[in-house]
Amino acid sequence: MHHASDILLTLFIVFIVAQIGSEIAQRLKLPGVVGEIAAGCVVGPSVLGWIVPDQVAAGTPLDVLAEIGVVLLLFSVGLETRLEDLKKVGKVAFLVGVLGVLVPFGMGGLWAHGSSFDWGRSLFVAAAFVATSAGITARVLQELGALQRVESKVILGAAVIDDILAMLLLGVVVSLQGGGGFDPIHLLSVLIGAIGFILVVGIGGARVMRWNSGWLDKPQNPHSALAIVLALCLGLAYISTRFGLAAIIGAFLAGMIASETRQQHTLEKQTQPLLSLLTPFFFVITGSKIDLHQLANVETGIMLLVVTLIAIVSKFIGGFFGALSLGKRSAAIVGFGMVPRGEVGVVIASLGLTAGVFTDRIYAIIVAMSLLTAMVTPPVLAWLLRRSRTAESTVQTSRG
Amino acid sequence: MHHASDILLTLFIVFIVAQIGSEIAQRLKLPGVVGEIAAGCVVGPSVLGWIVPDQVAAGTPLDVLAEIGVVLLLFSVGLETRLEDLKKVGKVAFLVGVLGVLVPFGMGGLWAHGSSFDWGRSLFVAAAFVATSAGITARVLQELGALQRVESKVILGAAVIDDILAMLLLGVVVSLQGGGGFDPIHLLSVLIGAIGFILVVGIGGARVMRWNSGWLDKPQNPHSALAIVLALCLGLAYISTRFGLAAIIGAFLAGMIASETRQQHTLEKQTQPLLSLLTPFFFVITGSKIDLHQLANVETGIMLLVVTLIAIVSKFIGGFFGALSLGKRSAAIVGFGMVPRGEVGVVIASLGLTAGVFTDRIYAIIVAMSLLTAMVTPPVLAWLLRRSRTAESTVQTSRG
Repeated sequence: MHHASDILLTLFIVFIVAQIGSEIAQRLKLPGVVGEIAAGCVVGPSVLGWIVPDQVAAGTPLDVLAEIGVVLLLFSVGLETRLEDLKKVGKVAFLVGVLGVLVPFGMGGLWAHGSSFDWGRSLFVAAAFVATSAGITARVLQELGALQRVESKVILGAAVIDDILAMLLLGVVVSLQGGGGFDPIHLLSVLIGAIGFILVVGIGGARVMRWNSGWLDKPQNPHSALAIVLALCLGLAYISTRFGLAAIIGAFLAGMIASETRQQHTLEKQTQPLLSLLTPFFFVITGSKIDLHQLANVETGIMLLVVTLIAIVSKFIGGFFGALSLGKRSAAIVGFGMVPRGEVGVVIASLGLTAGVFTDRIYAIIVAMSLLTAMVTPPVLAWLLRRSRTAESTVQTSRG
Repeated sequence: MHHASDILLTLFIVFIVAQIGSEIAQRLKLPGVVGEIAAGCVVGPSVLGWIVPDQVAAGTPLDVLAEIGVVLLLFSVGLETRLEDLKKVGKVAFLVGVLGVLVPFGMGGLWAHGSSFDWGRSLFVAAAFVATSAGITARVLQELGALQRVESKVILGAAVIDDILAMLLLGVVVSLQGGGGFDPIHLLSVLIGAIGFILVVGIGGARVMRWNSGWLDKPQNPHSALAIVLALCLGLAYISTRFGLAAIIGAFLAGMIASETRQQHTLEKQTQPLLSLLTPFFFVITGSKIDLHQLANVETGIMLLVVTLIAIVSKFIGGFFGALSLGKRSAAIVGFGMVPRGEVGVVIASLGLTAGVFTDRIYAIIVAMSLLTAMVTPPVLAWLLRRSRTAESTVQTSRG
């Protein structure tokens, strides 16, 4: 008579360990998100095994909840980001995005070729080093109240550029590996589609909302504006995937559009409870995918450490030199902010495995690398941000 | 590279049609929930076929989202319900709960036996007439701001009683049908377990919170109280299913406990955005399970109308006479408030089908009956409530 009993238990476990992990992390002066990922690692196969890989595979309820969580997170980050601020840092963000893709791709490719992969496979491995996953960094910046800093704007802008380039690169690598010819016209049309989507929706949407957002309010329903922008968020998240971009890019754009409305402040407040309920699913489930048993084998463990180190250093170098015009301290924040690969690296590794390009071992290593970068970033980033908490680095916004 | 594209589209569709349906219903002076269910019916197999039964089967992401939605809904209803108020209407609620189970069981059994079922099967069919699903009524009461009325308290209290009795009755019918003997001691222990759970958690929890709820607040985190009560909500929803009760009973208890805290008002506000995002999934998906094609066959259509009529009339009679001490108008509200069977009837029908007790046809009819009662209730209930909107029927609560 009463189904859904098991899933309720899992939801409860994920939610409660997130709270406990977050609480412990905060007492240790770490961002709460570190504790949530660590809690996921503890309930995952590494330690307790309460959450097994099958429960969090693509398309499962937990996976969908995690996806909704990170979509809402980037939506709320967008809500605190004005288009004007992004424009101001446009050049730096572009440089960070481009270097942050090229350096990891180059270093990753060289390492792979040095490890006796042929060039075709090496490019595929290299592609797995590329894509930054903005969720982790966005959460740290939000948690530390740093979203109005210039470094945060650069990171967010660069994450958009990064996602476009990573998508193109993956497209090239997959078609080369598949034996298909390199089709520059197709590639150009994909590029134009993605950029066009972002510009039209971002700039057009922001203009419309700045011009008139009164229609969002309805006298009989105090939550109508929220419902409309949430629909926008889900809609743009979907359309974004149709242009080959990550869902969170569309969600971020939706938030940025909503930040131009006069209901912006209310929307920010109303979004908070949604984040409280749903983002823990993203971070706990990210953590639950880490399987520490892979480190038990010494050889694999060393290889994992090398790969993770290359992934961190290469992304840091790209971001650091891209943002050097902001000064060394800020450049370090930007560089490290770009480090997390999160679920994007996992997806590329799965593609490689399915295509027969990767062995199980290299697959496991790339997945673990992606998750380790996500794990390492929050404490370092928090430390860098606290060290350089200076008033002058705050972008002056019209709303303060 | 980017998975989850399809599910994002489905989420978007469900969410947006809910908004459109709700808007249309409100312009027609109907509760928004009517529009959400109707929208689900339109995107379901009846008309557009955008949402097919496989997508909303038990354990799918949409099913889980719907479950979370109705759990949060009953949690928020609990937040507006004080234990003291429920105690005041205890006797009436008990009578409504008992008569609201016995009359439909009796009438349903007689109809089934009259339709050439043997007594074993007839009892099973009769059980499908019994269980009220509180979600639909709770939403209508909340939408019309009627949760503080005495009739609402009676309905909520009666829904708890109803759920206990329905669970026991189903247990008896299933064991009789399965050929297993009738085991009164087992049954008694189940009954004591369920009642004990509700009393201990409800009364104990409320006492603890009334005594001290300051510990819910943490200076560094304005959403800590919300996170804690949401954890309580998920936890009690799960435990409730372990005692054989519906998840929403546990969620309602969690809300009632949280209503005793000094953060009650803030929690109510913070819960609203969660409802905006998640309850549409419950109602749209409920609607999407209705397949109007079943009415195309005249004979089946007539049988469905008869069954639905019996379901409505029998529940109404039980509730009406149970609540007659409140006056005829209030008794009519209570009676009709108990009518929706919603997903509980569907679950019983599935059990009957799996056990080989029901044919496909009787299964389809019982499912359709459950959903039709859910569809019919909101407009009638809204009309009854508006007709008798009098100040004196409001329960005097300490917080107004």
